[in-house]
Amino acid sequence: MKKTNTAAIDQDLMAAAGGLIDRRAFLRQGMALGVGGAGLVTSAALAGTGRESWQQVPGLPFSGYGQPSAHEREVIRWVSANSQAPGNGIAWTPLHKLDGIITPSGLHFERHHNGVPQIDPERHTLLLHGLVKRPLTFSMDALLRYPRVSRYCFVECGGNSNAGWNEEPIQTPVGYFHGLASCSEWSGVPLVVLLEEAGVEPEAGWIIAEGADAAAMNVSIPLDKAREDTLVALYQNGERLRPENGYPLRLILPGFEAVLNVKWLSRLQVAREPVMARNETAKYTELLPNGKARQFSFVMEAKSFITEPSPGYRMRGPGLYQISGLAWSGRGRIKRVEVSADGGSSWAEAALQEPVLPQCFTRFRLPWQWDGSPRILKSRATDETGYQQPERAALIAERGRHGYFHYNAIVSWAVASDGSISHVYA
Amino acid sequence: MKKTNTAAIDQDLMAAAGGLIDRRAFLRQGMALGVGGAGLVTSAALAGTGRESWQQVPGLPFSGYGQPSAHEREVIRWVSANSQAPGNGIAWTPLHKLDGIITPSGLHFERHHNGVPQIDPERHTLLLHGLVKRPLTFSMDALLRYPRVSRYCFVECGGNSNAGWNEEPIQTPVGYFHGLASCSEWSGVPLVVLLEEAGVEPEAGWIIAEGADAAAMNVSIPLDKAREDTLVALYQNGERLRPENGYPLRLILPGFEAVLNVKWLSRLQVAREPVMARNETAKYTELLPNGKARQFSFVMEAKSFITEPSPGYRMRGPGLYQISGLAWSGRGRIKRVEVSADGGSSWAEAALQEPVLPQCFTRFRLPWQWDGSPRILKSRATDETGYQQPERAALIAERGRHGYFHYNAIVSWAVASDGSISHVYA
Repeated sequence: MKKTNTAAIDQDLMAAAGGLIDRRAFLRQGMALGVGGAGLVTSAALAGTGRESWQQVPGLPFSGYGQPSAHEREVIRWVSANSQAPGNGIAWTPLHKLDGIITPSGLHFERHHNGVPQIDPERHTLLLHGLVKRPLTFSMDALLRYPRVSRYCFVECGGNSNAGWNEEPIQTPVGYFHGLASCSEWSGVPLVVLLEEAGVEPEAGWIIAEGADAAAMNVSIPLDKAREDTLVALYQNGERLRPENGYPLRLILPGFEAVLNVKWLSRLQVAREPVMARNETAKYTELLPNGKARQFSFVMEAKSFITEPSPGYRMRGPGLYQISGLAWSGRGRIKRVEVSADGGSSWAEAALQEPVLPQCFTRFRLPWQWDGSPRILKSRATDETGYQQPERAALIAERGRHGYFHYNAIVSWAVASDGSISHVYA
Repeated sequence: MKKTNTAAIDQDLMAAAGGLIDRRAFLRQGMALGVGGAGLVTSAALAGTGRESWQQVPGLPFSGYGQPSAHEREVIRWVSANSQAPGNGIAWTPLHKLDGIITPSGLHFERHHNGVPQIDPERHTLLLHGLVKRPLTFSMDALLRYPRVSRYCFVECGGNSNAGWNEEPIQTPVGYFHGLASCSEWSGVPLVVLLEEAGVEPEAGWIIAEGADAAAMNVSIPLDKAREDTLVALYQNGERLRPENGYPLRLILPGFEAVLNVKWLSRLQVAREPVMARNETAKYTELLPNGKARQFSFVMEAKSFITEPSPGYRMRGPGLYQISGLAWSGRGRIKRVEVSADGGSSWAEAALQEPVLPQCFTRFRLPWQWDGSPRILKSRATDETGYQQPERAALIAERGRHGYFHYNAIVSWAVASDGSISHVYA
């Protein structure tokens, strides 16, 4: 009973070659594009509709704290940890299974150096000391008396997407390529409020932040950023932070690489210079072709990729599809995302889901009439500063062949005639 | 080592009587208001800082799907179900424990008539029939090919807050008074797209929506609303719907009472007239003092309340606090929330957390210098249509003493000298 729809779409709706349709097409009343996924119903079929088992018996009772359906049990983080030190590794957000911009807290990516500490909030404190007039210590109860603000923003590992540096394109679902990034509503105390209470000395330039994990992870953050928009976050997506995201408190530095967003925050030392910790010298730095190294490359550059369709999906024959994906920039708001269905020769502007927020995931969408022929899909983000996501060759020309961090080049998916999708360098 | 701060705040910062401070005060650089929650640190104390047990051993490994900290085990829904039919009842969102505007999906309120059906999405279908040119049936795979949009909005039970009709003020945490309301990012297919594909006959005026639960819950929705902004939602806060929120699909009618947002949606019948189902005749209607009944009173009116401090909290002595709360309106955006600390004689405008979105929870906040004397706190919301939340006496004058649904009057918390907080009619 399936119908297929390969009828020609009005040419004035076409936005670029390869079947990309104007992003406003679906919003026009009276426009039946014919997705072709529905089945026509006969009156005989209507009369014969049976009742499923779950319609015949009472369902499950109420619960104190709900969980996903058992049918979604494969929508989980993908863990890659050190077998000799299982608390050291990463776990990826399955971005290819999600829609909207919020990452459910249970699926927020993880990066730990020595596992997830089980902190008793009644005993945990935050110490603020160093170049301040009044060193202070805050219990969690005390911190909860301070004014809080909320903001949506992404947190992205500096090493996210680094398979892009590989010689050969990695063939994994997109969440296991770009999913060391997640997006939440964070609520907490602006760090500037605590700094004002302690009284920062004029010679200060940095803050050394340290976590209460067994790695005592520490890193230096610039005082300007600390004063501008850094949060001491206590809540994530409405509830208190999850243990793997820093319970009972963490730093949030909107747009900065995740390693600075110190989890299980226990100490802030105001200092004149950075501490030159392991994670800002041996790691999170990069040797450039000219022999110099990038260090303190905090801001995550504009990035985008198509989540649907993407590797692991299979097209169900020619017809109308919706292309959907994510874009973001550490520099501010996403201004524009363009999509190509012909490998970058022509581009159509995608619709951006409102509200478009700074340093935040932005969902883009565009209708696409696939004619069944091989196609190369790409997306390209531009942020409000005018910065545009580079092609892969341009990124390599600038940063060399031995990059590891901050990979943000345009990504290409090849759609084959049989409906399979693969990652290509094109 | 606690310090207290009862110093006078500059008079030019005062925004209303009772200690309410201008909402912009905390945003001014160089402003140390002195919350008074922090402890001063001596150098002897610094030197003696010990390491907690969780800093000395590796933490827990990565997980596929994360859960809240064990220390937050009391932040759960409060269940009130029929002991003879445990699938019939409600479960409240603990709004008094949350911040921001997102409700974690595990804490979204529940209202079921016959429990939570365990639906296999491979077997579930949506039937669209009645006054249409082409009756259609959609598998979940087919639906997922249609264009989707995302939006943040609240879902609120028409019976939320109805303890407000009681003769005596109910003494419970605010989540168990106003927590049949939750707010999520919903993603799904605009219902208008499916209606266009089926072709609605000109004489149609209503759509009868039915769920696949064992109550076969049904209700009538106006066709205009169905075409305007109704979603067939598949995703909640990024992931697929939770079972208790309609997995694998439900309706979302922004701003309309929750009973119309049919869960486990299995059938949409386009019709000329409403079906006059139980939940739009015997229930969700109200006899007015003039002998007429309110029926099809879909839109949830503007509401607000203070979550912090609120009953169950205890003030820790005089000093500076942040008042925080929630407001929303089914008619559109919240335009203004005012707070009073003197029982309604004077009002100060609270800060609204951006982005302020239509038919969405809106977080408001305001600093408050409590002098330790008894105070009556109130909040009052005004939406973009100019509608203002009424005082309790005005609501009762309009709707009578026997109301049950759509209670949205101003709420008053009495702060006693000992720091305890109670609900009062004042």
